[in-house]
Amino acid sequence: MNQPADSSSQAPAQDFRAIDVIRKKRDGVELSRAEIESLVDAYTRDEIPDYQVSAWLMAVVLRGMTRAETAALTEAMLHSGEVLDLSSLAPRKVDKHSTGGVGDKTSLVLAPVVAAAGLAVPMISGRGLGHTGGTLDKLEAIPGFDVNLPVARFRQVLETCGCAMIGQTAEIAPADRKLYALRDVTGTVESPYLICASIMSKKLAEGIDALVLDVKTGSGAFMKSEKDAAFLAELMVETGERMGKKMVALITDMDQPLGNKIGNALEVVEVVEVLRGGGPEDLQQLCHELAGWMLHLGGAAATVAEGKRRSAELISSGKALEKFRQMVEMQGGDPRAIDDVKRLPQARHTMDVLSPSIGYLASVQCEQIGTACVVLGGGRERKEDTVDPAVGIVLHKKVGDGVSAGESLATVYYNSEARAAAAKRLLETSFTIADAAPASKRPLIHRVIGGMAKPGEKN
Amino acid sequence: MNQPADSSSQAPAQDFRAIDVIRKKRDGVELSRAEIESLVDAYTRDEIPDYQVSAWLMAVVLRGMTRAETAALTEAMLHSGEVLDLSSLAPRKVDKHSTGGVGDKTSLVLAPVVAAAGLAVPMISGRGLGHTGGTLDKLEAIPGFDVNLPVARFRQVLETCGCAMIGQTAEIAPADRKLYALRDVTGTVESPYLICASIMSKKLAEGIDALVLDVKTGSGAFMKSEKDAAFLAELMVETGERMGKKMVALITDMDQPLGNKIGNALEVVEVVEVLRGGGPEDLQQLCHELAGWMLHLGGAAATVAEGKRRSAELISSGKALEKFRQMVEMQGGDPRAIDDVKRLPQARHTMDVLSPSIGYLASVQCEQIGTACVVLGGGRERKEDTVDPAVGIVLHKKVGDGVSAGESLATVYYNSEARAAAAKRLLETSFTIADAAPASKRPLIHRVIGGMAKPGEKN
Repeated sequence: MNQPADSSSQAPAQDFRAIDVIRKKRDGVELSRAEIESLVDAYTRDEIPDYQVSAWLMAVVLRGMTRAETAALTEAMLHSGEVLDLSSLAPRKVDKHSTGGVGDKTSLVLAPVVAAAGLAVPMISGRGLGHTGGTLDKLEAIPGFDVNLPVARFRQVLETCGCAMIGQTAEIAPADRKLYALRDVTGTVESPYLICASIMSKKLAEGIDALVLDVKTGSGAFMKSEKDAAFLAELMVETGERMGKKMVALITDMDQPLGNKIGNALEVVEVVEVLRGGGPEDLQQLCHELAGWMLHLGGAAATVAEGKRRSAELISSGKALEKFRQMVEMQGGDPRAIDDVKRLPQARHTMDVLSPSIGYLASVQCEQIGTACVVLGGGRERKEDTVDPAVGIVLHKKVGDGVSAGESLATVYYNSEARAAAAKRLLETSFTIADAAPASKRPLIHRVIGGMAKPGEKN
Repeated sequence: MNQPADSSSQAPAQDFRAIDVIRKKRDGVELSRAEIESLVDAYTRDEIPDYQVSAWLMAVVLRGMTRAETAALTEAMLHSGEVLDLSSLAPRKVDKHSTGGVGDKTSLVLAPVVAAAGLAVPMISGRGLGHTGGTLDKLEAIPGFDVNLPVARFRQVLETCGCAMIGQTAEIAPADRKLYALRDVTGTVESPYLICASIMSKKLAEGIDALVLDVKTGSGAFMKSEKDAAFLAELMVETGERMGKKMVALITDMDQPLGNKIGNALEVVEVVEVLRGGGPEDLQQLCHELAGWMLHLGGAAATVAEGKRRSAELISSGKALEKFRQMVEMQGGDPRAIDDVKRLPQARHTMDVLSPSIGYLASVQCEQIGTACVVLGGGRERKEDTVDPAVGIVLHKKVGDGVSAGESLATVYYNSEARAAAAKRLLETSFTIADAAPASKRPLIHRVIGGMAKPGEKN
């Protein structure tokens, strides 16, 4: 019944009709750049109704998009609003984006490390979504920290400090804000093409030259399978490269939380630990890996290996921590909270989740641990919820570690008995204790996609 | 990326959320009857927004529906409004529905023929759509004929006369009216499942026992290929049978117009010709075929062949014409226009479209001939257009007929020079003249589906 539409994919969209674009996508015909631009522009200006766009979005979910269509959609969304012109800044602007996970606090380490190396990091971040935490919520755990800087002040902080971290402004990619709200209520979130366009349009609005993507996979990630994660990663890398950006995507493990601390203030504590040269090994390793790529793609290191060495030096010399302190201060935060983390919000109570038996930690239900933190008040169940920065979970074991009966697996930091009880119930079913250690360990970095990586540099 | 939704297709829709139903259909999971009912009911009551329903409709277009889902959707739409209770009428109520074509005026013949045989024909019809004509527009060519009878008067006419023909009322299948308006602007018209539910919900609201479907195929039909026509026919037959109705579908030819006359008043003239025992052979044949099935399924004839003989008798005896005259009169029309068709609206001018060469009529572009009638003012380009009942086209040749150079292929009846010129341009490219007659002739009846037909009865 679905006859292909008559117009060719190269036709200009002079007499644009949304219905024609819907029909073409429905019938699996490739849309032209002009057609996609017209659709996005008209929707941003409220000239076509939600019901036409939602039908089109569903057709995209089920028919997919070509690489050219994905790039055209990304660019149309990018140009629906302001694109920052940071050409007056440091020679290279780089950023990192993560698809979201539990305990993922690398942005707070990476921005100061990379800025300390002389590059600019104009980082526009998001809030917690579902079971995952958000960079803005973590930053706001620092007393006084302002994530809502006007663009002029954002630019000032960047010029002085080299890094700045804010939330999305109304001027950036307004098409994405409208489309995302519609996708959320029409079952059209789950499309790699639409996810790619949403992420890339916002990140490229930062006026960056290079972008490192941290695409999570595993039980705590949105993309549970490595295959889905790799597909999205390839799509984003190719889309960025088509727009002249240096791109790499690391597929990294989210089958257990990253680091040991989950919860906004607790994660800031762990960030400071890493910036002081300590902290959990997996978090340290991933920060160096991502920083290595950022420095390499940003031209501050000839190779990724050199970038990783540089990252380690900037941390051991204290320069990265100093940069973090400077950014916190310039964004209105209390720098004394960095030197003395007791000044960060503190939960009033703690309780432990104990191992029921002796053995080895065989696996964790990572998403459920993230949900436990939301239940404590550390994340949002609905958009309008406020977040309690003090609450969270500290894990004492990583997968593969030995454990005694009655030993603490995790400590819960809480302010509400009822919430703590609910979180504890979730945590008690989140750990699997086995008689033997797991035969193999999942790697932290599963794959590297793009980045013009030479084989020897991949890990 | 598309994980199947969690709920089973048999779950009751107690806590119905439109988003869950959209996601399930997107992921190819079968919806339960309760879920489909909840969606249709909520939409009819304006409790869910257009943008969710249009996303769901697009998912239906691309994922399809099972037979059970199609039946559930049809029933939900049927029960969104009033279902006529005609149990006080003649023992059997039967109707016929056509998917639409050019020159298709069989309803005006069939209703009186079948009513003259003692069955009731409560016919609720539509207006012209695209290049095809509509039964209501044809009836309104008869001076005074009222297609907007209240239900009580419709019932009276049926009781007295045995047949009545009206337009859709606000009470019948309101869900279909809302859904059709949304489908029209969201590229979701072209789904056999949605077409089936739309047609069947309206037809079954007539309270009928049996339904004969005339599913058109060919260049002048909505379903150009016989495969698509047969798929839709099977779907409608099975849906009706699931609801306890006697059903048959005839796949009939629409590769050239049916009969010779196209245009509202002109088609009434041809209807009167057939009811007087004359008229074009193809139109006569199809009317007897459809009437035979209506009489058979309605229990007035033991076989289709007997039904066809009965139909011929009712015409040759003048009883069918008398029944038509009675219905016209009871619906406010001038019965003198039946006896003297010069009383029907007359176009002021005529012009002929001549054959450029000697040969045989090899093929016609049937949809284009229908469009030429719309261009003359005989149909609607937009819903709000008014129709000129007098204009139209009389064809002088059927496919396979010999033709001389300069002989008239068609006469255009018109009231506007500009419209006539545009229609003539279309008609001049609608006929293909070849040196030899076509090797094979398309049958008028391609296939019979359902009807518990015995092979010998198929044609």
